[in-house]
Amino acid sequence: MRRLPRYYSCLCDLQLSGVERISSEELASVMQITSSQVRLDLSHFGNFGQRGYGYNIHQLLISIGNILGIYSDNHLILIGTGKLGRALLRSFPFSRIGFTVDAAFSLSPKIVGAKFAGIPVYPSSMLSDFVRSHQIHVAALTLPSSAAQSTVDELVQQGVTGFWNFTNANLKSDDPRVHFENIRLTDSLLRLNYCVIHPQQEQAARAQKKQKKG
Amino acid sequence: MRRLPRYYSCLCDLQLSGVERISSEELASVMQITSSQVRLDLSHFGNFGQRGYGYNIHQLLISIGNILGIYSDNHLILIGTGKLGRALLRSFPFSRIGFTVDAAFSLSPKIVGAKFAGIPVYPSSMLSDFVRSHQIHVAALTLPSSAAQSTVDELVQQGVTGFWNFTNANLKSDDPRVHFENIRLTDSLLRLNYCVIHPQQEQAARAQKKQKKG
Repeated sequence: MRRLPRYYSCLCDLQLSGVERISSEELASVMQITSSQVRLDLSHFGNFGQRGYGYNIHQLLISIGNILGIYSDNHLILIGTGKLGRALLRSFPFSRIGFTVDAAFSLSPKIVGAKFAGIPVYPSSMLSDFVRSHQIHVAALTLPSSAAQSTVDELVQQGVTGFWNFTNANLKSDDPRVHFENIRLTDSLLRLNYCVIHPQQEQAARAQKKQKKG
Repeated sequence: MRRLPRYYSCLCDLQLSGVERISSEELASVMQITSSQVRLDLSHFGNFGQRGYGYNIHQLLISIGNILGIYSDNHLILIGTGKLGRALLRSFPFSRIGFTVDAAFSLSPKIVGAKFAGIPVYPSSMLSDFVRSHQIHVAALTLPSSAAQSTVDELVQQGVTGFWNFTNANLKSDDPRVHFENIRLTDSLLRLNYCVIHPQQEQAARAQKKQKKG
């Protein structure tokens, strides 16, 4: 399952560039995995491949899209309307993957009442009521790290089980249904910079990893 | 090394909230790892912990920051000034981790000449010359996926070894010094949504993973 979103994204790009069908070898090359892994993965949800023909990209996209819930009516809210939150509201193509952003919530009285990309900003005091009455299950967290865990605890009580976490906080919940997807932009750029400024250490670490695998 | 950026981010948050020192147990809880792992990790770069006192957060931040190159003069360029690229220029706190964005590059003649967050936008025809003359080693990629690999190939020839990749493309380079950090926002939200709409499958997968570990 971990690879399904990657398949979906890669196949979307292929379709956009006009490709209609693809062999498991070609798809493996795009996905940077082996072609036997591709065949195994795709066999799990129906038989889309035909020998000598390859996979029909349109059909495959519909099937994977269905499993990923892209054609369902998905809703989310966003909490924290600082620079990052507003950037996300304005720039992320939520609707392309079946999402509607119902509302944003802010601690700042200045911003409450504003709209970003057509999405209204409500005060955080309305958060619990809104989530319960709108049956929201997914929340994007772009608020300060220090407020993240208490907000998670509040939202889990109202039935939110998916958190798209852009904060630095290492969040947790005792509820086994709750899932966190962490986007760590700062960590990622720091890691990249480390590799650039310490090329020898990084190469040695990669070689060691390869050896362990082999 | 993988954990160093995470330590850095967590310690920054702790310092911001006024904490001056921390025990390995407390730091382990924040990092969601074991305290013996914390002690082992931090012993690798000097002896910061004192029995019964814990770690001095300020000292630790300086040491980790040094290894991560935060106090160096780091430069990057950004390629692709669509919604995402502009959002990143406007909202990401580059300077907080020692980065200066020297320039952005665009394929669109309409945007060339503009400035976003004070950063000038140049035509992509100037890319190679700029990178070479300014000795740029890091590039953020926010351009269309279809143009990403050819841009990487061009930039690697000019000495870029670090790519902060926001495109869908699975990028590669034959040069072993080249490193990619991929930010897959769409994949991440799709994965989260899958877990929310298929809670049973996700819990079974987690249980299986735990069993394998144990």
